[in-house]
Amino acid sequence: MIFKRIKSEGIAANSYLIGSGENAFVIDPRRDCQVYVDVAQQEGLIINHIFETHRHEDFAVGSIELAHIAGATIYHGPGLQWGYGITLKDGETFSIGHLKVTVIHTPGHTDESVSYVITDLATGGSPVIVFTGDTLFVNDVGRTDLYGDNQVSRLAGNLFNSIFNRLLPLGDGVIICPAHGGGSICGTHIAGRDESSLGIERNQNPILQNTKKEDFVKYKMSEHLEKPPYFKRMEQDNLNGPRLLGNLPVPPSLTPGEFNENIENGAVVLDTRDPSAFGGAHIAGSYSIWLDGLPSFVGWVLPYDQPLILVADNEQYLEKAVRYLVREGYDNIAGYLKGNIESWYSAGLPIESLKLISANDLKAMLDHKENVTVLDVRKQNEWEEGHIKEAVNIFVGHLIDKLSQIPKEKPTVVHCSAGYRSGLAASILLRAGYTDVYNVAGGINAWISSGLPIIRG
Amino acid sequence: MIFKRIKSEGIAANSYLIGSGENAFVIDPRRDCQVYVDVAQQEGLIINHIFETHRHEDFAVGSIELAHIAGATIYHGPGLQWGYGITLKDGETFSIGHLKVTVIHTPGHTDESVSYVITDLATGGSPVIVFTGDTLFVNDVGRTDLYGDNQVSRLAGNLFNSIFNRLLPLGDGVIICPAHGGGSICGTHIAGRDESSLGIERNQNPILQNTKKEDFVKYKMSEHLEKPPYFKRMEQDNLNGPRLLGNLPVPPSLTPGEFNENIENGAVVLDTRDPSAFGGAHIAGSYSIWLDGLPSFVGWVLPYDQPLILVADNEQYLEKAVRYLVREGYDNIAGYLKGNIESWYSAGLPIESLKLISANDLKAMLDHKENVTVLDVRKQNEWEEGHIKEAVNIFVGHLIDKLSQIPKEKPTVVHCSAGYRSGLAASILLRAGYTDVYNVAGGINAWISSGLPIIRG
Amino acid sequence: MIFKRIKSEGIAANSYLIGSGENAFVIDPRRDCQVYVDVAQQEGLIINHIFETHRHEDFAVGSIELAHIAGATIYHGPGLQWGYGITLKDGETFSIGHLKVTVIHTPGHTDESVSYVITDLATGGSPVIVFTGDTLFVNDVGRTDLYGDNQVSRLAGNLFNSIFNRLLPLGDGVIICPAHGGGSICGTHIAGRDESSLGIERNQNPILQNTKKEDFVKYKMSEHLEKPPYFKRMEQDNLNGPRLLGNLPVPPSLTPGEFNENIENGAVVLDTRDPSAFGGAHIAGSYSIWLDGLPSFVGWVLPYDQPLILVADNEQYLEKAVRYLVREGYDNIAGYLKGNIESWYSAGLPIESLKLISANDLKAMLDHKENVTVLDVRKQNEWEEGHIKEAVNIFVGHLIDKLSQIPKEKPTVVHCSAGYRSGLAASILLRAGYTDVYNVAGGINAWISSGLPIIRG
Amino acid sequence: MIFKRIKSEGIAANSYLIGSGENAFVIDPRRDCQVYVDVAQQEGLIINHIFETHRHEDFAVGSIELAHIAGATIYHGPGLQWGYGITLKDGETFSIGHLKVTVIHTPGHTDESVSYVITDLATGGSPVIVFTGDTLFVNDVGRTDLYGDNQVSRLAGNLFNSIFNRLLPLGDGVIICPAHGGGSICGTHIAGRDESSLGIERNQNPILQNTKKEDFVKYKMSEHLEKPPYFKRMEQDNLNGPRLLGNLPVPPSLTPGEFNENIENGAVVLDTRDPSAFGGAHIAGSYSIWLDGLPSFVGWVLPYDQPLILVADNEQYLEKAVRYLVREGYDNIAGYLKGNIESWYSAGLPIESLKLISANDLKAMLDHKENVTVLDVRKQNEWEEGHIKEAVNIFVGHLIDKLSQIPKEKPTVVHCSAGYRSGLAASILLRAGYTDVYNVAGGINAWISSGLPIIRG
Repeated sequence: MIFKRIKSEGIAANSYLIGSGENAFVIDPRRDCQVYVDVAQQEGLIINHIFETHRHEDFAVGSIELAHIAGATIYHGPGLQWGYGITLKDGETFSIGHLKVTVIHTPGHTDESVSYVITDLATGGSPVIVFTGDTLFVNDVGRTDLYGDNQVSRLAGNLFNSIFNRLLPLGDGVIICPAHGGGSICGTHIAGRDESSLGIERNQNPILQNTKKEDFVKYKMSEHLEKPPYFKRMEQDNLNGPRLLGNLPVPPSLTPGEFNENIENGAVVLDTRDPSAFGGAHIAGSYSIWLDGLPSFVGWVLPYDQPLILVADNEQYLEKAVRYLVREGYDNIAGYLKGNIESWYSAGLPIESLKLISANDLKAMLDHKENVTVLDVRKQNEWEEGHIKEAVNIFVGHLIDKLSQIPKEKPTVVHCSAGYRSGLAASILLRAGYTDVYNVAGGINAWISSGLPIIRG
Repeated sequence: MIFKRIKSEGIAANSYLIGSGENAFVIDPRRDCQVYVDVAQQEGLIINHIFETHRHEDFAVGSIELAHIAGATIYHGPGLQWGYGITLKDGETFSIGHLKVTVIHTPGHTDESVSYVITDLATGGSPVIVFTGDTLFVNDVGRTDLYGDNQVSRLAGNLFNSIFNRLLPLGDGVIICPAHGGGSICGTHIAGRDESSLGIERNQNPILQNTKKEDFVKYKMSEHLEKPPYFKRMEQDNLNGPRLLGNLPVPPSLTPGEFNENIENGAVVLDTRDPSAFGGAHIAGSYSIWLDGLPSFVGWVLPYDQPLILVADNEQYLEKAVRYLVREGYDNIAGYLKGNIESWYSAGLPIESLKLISANDLKAMLDHKENVTVLDVRKQNEWEEGHIKEAVNIFVGHLIDKLSQIPKEKPTVVHCSAGYRSGLAASILLRAGYTDVYNVAGGINAWISSGLPIIRG
Repeated sequence: MIFKRIKSEGIAANSYLIGSGENAFVIDPRRDCQVYVDVAQQEGLIINHIFETHRHEDFAVGSIELAHIAGATIYHGPGLQWGYGITLKDGETFSIGHLKVTVIHTPGHTDESVSYVITDLATGGSPVIVFTGDTLFVNDVGRTDLYGDNQVSRLAGNLFNSIFNRLLPLGDGVIICPAHGGGSICGTHIAGRDESSLGIERNQNPILQNTKKEDFVKYKMSEHLEKPPYFKRMEQDNLNGPRLLGNLPVPPSLTPGEFNENIENGAVVLDTRDPSAFGGAHIAGSYSIWLDGLPSFVGWVLPYDQPLILVADNEQYLEKAVRYLVREGYDNIAGYLKGNIESWYSAGLPIESLKLISANDLKAMLDHKENVTVLDVRKQNEWEEGHIKEAVNIFVGHLIDKLSQIPKEKPTVVHCSAGYRSGLAASILLRAGYTDVYNVAGGINAWISSGLPIIRG
Repeated sequence: MIFKRIKSEGIAANSYLIGSGENAFVIDPRRDCQVYVDVAQQEGLIINHIFETHRHEDFAVGSIELAHIAGATIYHGPGLQWGYGITLKDGETFSIGHLKVTVIHTPGHTDESVSYVITDLATGGSPVIVFTGDTLFVNDVGRTDLYGDNQVSRLAGNLFNSIFNRLLPLGDGVIICPAHGGGSICGTHIAGRDESSLGIERNQNPILQNTKKEDFVKYKMSEHLEKPPYFKRMEQDNLNGPRLLGNLPVPPSLTPGEFNENIENGAVVLDTRDPSAFGGAHIAGSYSIWLDGLPSFVGWVLPYDQPLILVADNEQYLEKAVRYLVREGYDNIAGYLKGNIESWYSAGLPIESLKLISANDLKAMLDHKENVTVLDVRKQNEWEEGHIKEAVNIFVGHLIDKLSQIPKEKPTVVHCSAGYRSGLAASILLRAGYTDVYNVAGGINAWISSGLPIIRG
C-alpha cells in the first residue's frame, strides 16, 4: 500500500493519495492537482477514483481538475445534489488492489459528509484507516455552524451519532486521516500532529470527553468560530463544480503604466510582500497580505467580482501566490507588476508609506497620553489571553465591516501578534481613507518581550 | 510534530525523523545519512538525539555518520556493550519540543532491543506512537534465530513478554513504527503497508494470535528464515561502530586497461546491469547483480576482503550502487569502468555471454529429453508454491556453498521467478567454471504465463 | 546582448536565441521548443521573431510550435513557396533592442537559404555575428546535392557566390553561427568546435581554399554524402509546416499483451536499449537503435506510415526517445512497453537473441575458414581508412535496399566501429529472416585493439 | 572543443572552461569554484590546468580552491613574484586534446598580464581564440591606473604595445574572450555583449581608434575610474593566495538575542533586503546593500577586520550573499539572523526606519523652500548626464570619507538612479548619526518620469 498525505499550507488541508497494485485513489484533492499525477507516476500508479468526504467550504474542490487530467471518476456522499460526480450510498464498497474501501455516511459537519474506511485484505478483514473528512480531527471535531445558528443543534446531534456510533465502533486501532490539520479555520483545537487513531481520540480528544449526546450538543452550540465571507462562495462553487482551469494560470506581466491602467479600471492591488517592505513604500490602495498569509486572509477581504493584480517580491514567488488564490476560487488574476515595486517607483507613480513603530514607541505614545486608537486585530481568544489595556479588539477579518468603530480623525496604531495581520488591517484603513496609521513591528510579541504590561480576559 | 519515514529500498529498512519545536531526533539512521540533515534543514529543525532500537544485523548503522555531521548524541539499549553511544535504561525519558520519549526495554529479537514511546504533551498524556524496532512489525514479529538455535527458545520467550506485557498494554490506539517494512529479510510476513497500530496488530497479526507464550515460542522455534553471511559482519561492525565515511565515497573511473589490471590484482567485478545486458556480453568472472537487487544480494556473495570494481549501465546509476554497497559495509570500492561496457568491448578485452532462453525453449529441451540440470534458485517457500517437475532447488544465496550438487559436465538451465536472481546464480556458475549455462528469461512467471505445468509442495 | 546556442544532439543542429532589451528572436528552432521559452523567461525576454535560415531537410522545423506557444512571427527566405510564415527580401532589416538584423539572400545549399547579419548598434555599425544556416559551417560548406545530380553545378555556383561575394565581404572579424556543428550529416568536415569567424574560415576552411569558382564547383560535384530517405519527408513537412504538437507527446504504457496486439496490427517495434541488452534477448522483429543513435538512424529505417511502439531501458529514457522521434517527424508513437523488457519475458511471449562475439572470436572463425559473410556496415570513408580483408561493405543505412547482396544460407557476422550500428544492421537481418547472425562487440575498434590486421583503401 | 563561459554577476567577471579530448583547462576561476568541477564532470572532462591572466584586483582569485578540489596546476604570467603557482614565459605552449595554448606576455593593465592564444590543430594552425584578461575588452581596454598616477604613462605605453603589436597581429578573425563583461568596474565602456573578435575591436573599439601610441597614452592618462578600497586587499590576497575555504562557508543562524550580542561585540550588520523593506524597519546601525548590489558595493564600505552578520529576506538568499562576500575576500561571516527581521521585531529589540519619498514629494519640499540637503550619490558621469539643480554629488563609495560635507543639522534627501545606492548612502548617514534622512524611491528615474526638470554638465 502506498500512502501519501499531501498538505495545502495555510488552510492546513489534507488530501491523500492511496495506491495498491497498479491503481490509486485520491481523497479530497486540491485544485492545483498536478501533484497527485506526479506522485502516481513516480509510484507507477493510475488514479481511478476521486473520493470527496464532503463539499468543503474553505477551498475550491479539485476533483474536476483531477478527473480531467487523470481520467478518474468523482464520488461524493448522499444528501446534497452536486452538479458533478457520482453519489455514494452508505455501505458501498470499492476494490483497489488488495484494499477495500467502504463508504460510511457520517453527517454532522454537513449532511452529505462521508467517511471512507480502508481494509487491507492482504492482512485481514479489520479496518485499518478511516478518512474522516471534517467529521473527526486530531484533537477536535468538525464545525456544525455552517448551516446557520438554527441548525447547529441538529447537526451537532448528527455529528455525535456519526462519531460515537459509526466511527468509534470501528475499533481503537483504526488510524484516522482527517481533511484538516492544525492551523485550519475548520477547528480551533486541531493538533499540530497528523498521526492519530480512534483510540487516541477516544482517550484524549477534549470534545469526545462529552460522551453524552446532550453535553456534546451543548458544547457545540456554545462554540464560536470565525466564518470568512468566501465560505459562501466556495460552497456554491463546490456544489456546481469550480471552473475547469486546465493548468495553473500564468498571469501576464504588466508594466507600471499598464498596471496603473488596470487600477483605474477597477482592478484590486494585492501586495504580497512582507510588512516591512509594504511599510517602506507601496502603491496607494493596495491590500497588504504577505505571501504565506494568502491562504488564510484573501477570502476575508478580496472581492470575487473585480480583477486582481499582484505585487510580489520577485517573480519566483508569483506561482505560489497564484496557487494560493486559485485554491480559494480567485481565478480572475489580471497580471502582476513587471520589475516588481522598483519599476513602479522608477516610473514616478504615486506611492504611500505605512510607518512601522516598535512596542516601546507605542508605550511612549501612551505614556505621553497621545490621543490614539490602539487597534488589536487578533482573534478574540488571543485577545483574551492577554492584551494592551488601552486597546480595542476587532478581528482583522471583520475590520471592513466595522470601520465605523474606528474614528478617522485621530491616529490609529494597529497591532496583532507579530505585525503581519496588522499590516493587512492597516492597509484596509489606508484604503478607507485613514491617513495617520501605524503598524507595530513585532506586535504583542514585541510588547511582551519588551517587558510591557498586559491584561487578560 | 513533524513525522518523516525514510525508507532504504531493497533492505526495506525504516528510519524516522521526528521533530517538535526546534529540535528533532532520528531513529535508526542509515549510513548515507545526508537525507536526515536535509529534511531537518527544510523543516527548520536541529537533530539532537539519535536513538537506535537495536544493533541491527542487516545494514551498517548510520549513527556515527549522523552524529558526526549533525553533532547529535547516540543512544541505544542495555544488555550489550557497544563501542559508542550512551546506554539507556528502561523507563528513561527525553523531552523534545512538546514530545516526551520514553524508553522501554523490549528484548527478544536481541537482548538490547528497546522501543521508544512517544507522548504528545500538547494533546494529553497517553502514548501516541511507539517505535518498535525489530520487536513488532506490521503483520509479523522480530526474528529470534540470530544468536543460534540454542537461544531461540529464550529469545522467543523474551519477545513474547516484550510484545504482550510491554507493548500491547500501551493501548490499541498507539501507532506502531517498526524498523522494517515488507520485503525485508528480517521477517517473512511483514505487510506491504506501513500504517498500523497496536490494536490492528493485536487483531490481525498472525503471530500474535499465539496468545499463549508456549504456542508463541513453539511457532518461533519452527520458523525458518534465511541468514545471509554478511549479517555476522554487520553485527560486528555495528557493535564497534562502522568506519566513519564522512561522505558517500566517489569511486575513481578506470579505463578498460586499468580495470583489467584491477581484476588481475584480485578485484571482484560486480556487473549491475540487467540480466539481458549481462547475457549479451560481459566481462568474464563478473558477478551479475542488477542495480535494485544489490541491497538484497551483495551480502550473500561479495567478499569483504577484496576490492570491488563496478560495471554500470551508465554513470548516473553509479551513486545508487555505491549507496547500496556502503549500507552493507562494502567500503572498498576500487573504481568503476569508464565508458561502460562498450569501452571494454572496444578495447578488445575478453568477453563472455550467457544465453537467455524462453520458458518454451526450456520446455522443448525437456520434451526432447535433453540431459540438462534445471536449477531453481528461488527460496524454499516459493518453490513449494509451485515449481517445474524436473527442477532442483538451491536458493541463490546458498549456491556458492552447494556447487558440488550441480554436475559440471552437463548443461545447466537456471531460473528463478523473473530472471534476475537466476542471472546472479548463472554468473556464479560461470565464475566456477561451468561452461554451458542458460538463464530463463521471465523465469517461472514466463513458464506459468506460457501455460506450462507446475507441481506444488 | 544575450546569446544562447541550443544544440540538438545526434543531428548536431544548432539553434540560437538572441536577446536585447526586452525582446528576443530565435534562429532555426527545433520542434520540442519549450527550451526557448524557458531561456527567454529566465532572461526576462519576450520572443517576437523566429527566423528560419532555410527549409531544413534533416529535422522537422519547430517554428510553428514556437510561434504557437510564444506568439511570435515566423520569417524565411525568398525563392520557395512556404505554407506558413512571412517571406523576406534580401536587405530587409529588423530592430531588436539595440541590435539590427539584416537579411542577406545566400542561395546555394537551397534556393531560399538566407543568412542573418547582426549589428550591435550600441557599439557601432559594423557587423558582429552572421547566422549562416547551411551556407557556411565551421570547416565546411553546405551540401549542394539535395535537388538531384543535375542541379549540383548550379547550386554550387550559387553557394560560391553567396560565400565569396556576400558573406566574406562582411569582414574577417565577423563571428559565424551555422545551423550545424560537428557530427551532422549535412557536412563531412564540420569541425568539433563551434567558435569561428569569417576570417578563420577564409584562412583554414579547406573548401574555401578553392577560391576560383570552377574549382569550388568541381569540388562540390565530386563530393559524396549520404542522403537518408527521411530527408524527402522533412522537406515536404517543412514546406507545408509540420503538424502542431502543442506539447511533447506522452505515449501510453502498454502491457505485454497490448504491446503484442499492436505488433499484430502492424506496429513497428523500436528497441532503444544498448546492443548488449538487445543481444541478450529481445522481441522478435524489433529494430535495435540505441537511445543516442535515434537522431542519426531512425530516418534511415523507420516507416512514417506505421505506428511505432517502444522498448526502453526504463521509463526515464522514454522522454528522450520521444523527443528524438518527433524532431524527425515521427509523431505516430502508439505506446511503450510497460515494465520494460522484463515484463515481456515474464509474460512468456516469444524472444530472440543476437549473439555478440569478440573480435578474436571472429578471427578464429576466419582462421578456421568458416564459411561466413563478414559485413562491415560503416560509411565508405571509414571503410577506406581500414577494414578486415574478408569483409564486404554496405552502409547500415543502405542495408534494407541491398539485402539481396547478403546470402541467407550462411552465417553473417556484422560489425561497425563499436557495435552499435552493427546492432541495427543485425536487427534488420533478423527481421528479414536471416537466422544465423552475429554482432562483433567493440567492432573494428576491438579488432584493432586486439592487434589484428586491417587493409586500407 | 567544449567552450563554457562562466560569469560572476555584479562584478561581471568572466571565467572560462575549455575542454578537448578528456582534458580541460580553466581561465581565471572564481573562488566559489564548484561550478567548474560540475561542468567538467557533465562533459566527461578532467581539469588539469588553471591559467590566470593576471593577479586581479576586483575579486579573490579562485585558483587555489580549484587546484585543491580538482588537483590541477596553477599558472600565471611573469613580472611579479606570486606566492603560488608556476610562472610562465612568453611563448610557452601547452597541448590539451587537439588544442594548442600559447602564452603571450601582454603587460599594460599590470606587469604580469598574459594572454592565452588557442589554436585548434584539428582544423589548422591559425589562432582561433585569445583569452585577453584585462588587456582588451569588448569595446574597451584595461585600466592602467592601479599602480598609481606616476605609472599610468608607462603602463599605457605597454598596453598599447601589447594590443597593437601582440594581439591585433594574431588576425582579425580571432575571437576574443576577456576577463570582464559589461558592468565591470574594470572599464567604463565595456559592451553588454560577450561576442567579439580582434577585427571587430580594431574597427569599432573607441580606444583602439587611437592608433598612435601617444594619443593612446594621452587618452589613458585622462581617464578617471573609481577604485574601491577593497582593491588593495584583493591585490595583496591574490599575490599571496587567498585563504583556502574548502567549501562555501555556511554561517550559523543567530537568534535575535545572539545577533544583538554580536552587534555589541563589534560585528557589522549587513541588511541585504531591498530598500523598501529596509525603509520599513531595520536594525539600527545596519548597512543597507540589496542582494544583487553586494558584489559592487561591499568592497566600498565593509571592513575586513570586523565580523559581518547578515539580515536576509529569507534563508534561500543567504547562500548567494555568502557567495558574493567570499568572492571579495569577506570570509569572516559570523552568522545570520534566524527567522529574518520579523524575529528581531518580535523580540522587541530596537528598530529604525528610513522614510522613502517620491520624486514629487521631493519637488514639493524644494518648492516650499524647505532647508534640505539633496544628495545625489551616483557616479560623476551619471551626474553630468543630468541632475537636480539643488543637488550636491558625492558618489556613494566616497560618502564615508566625505561626511563632513553634509551638514548634520538639516534634513538630507538622498537619491541615486533608482533608490538602491541611495539606500546604502542613507544607511551610512544613519550609522553616522544623521537623524533626518530620506531616500527617494525610484531616484532620478522617478524624477524624470514625473516630468521634473534636470540640468546637465
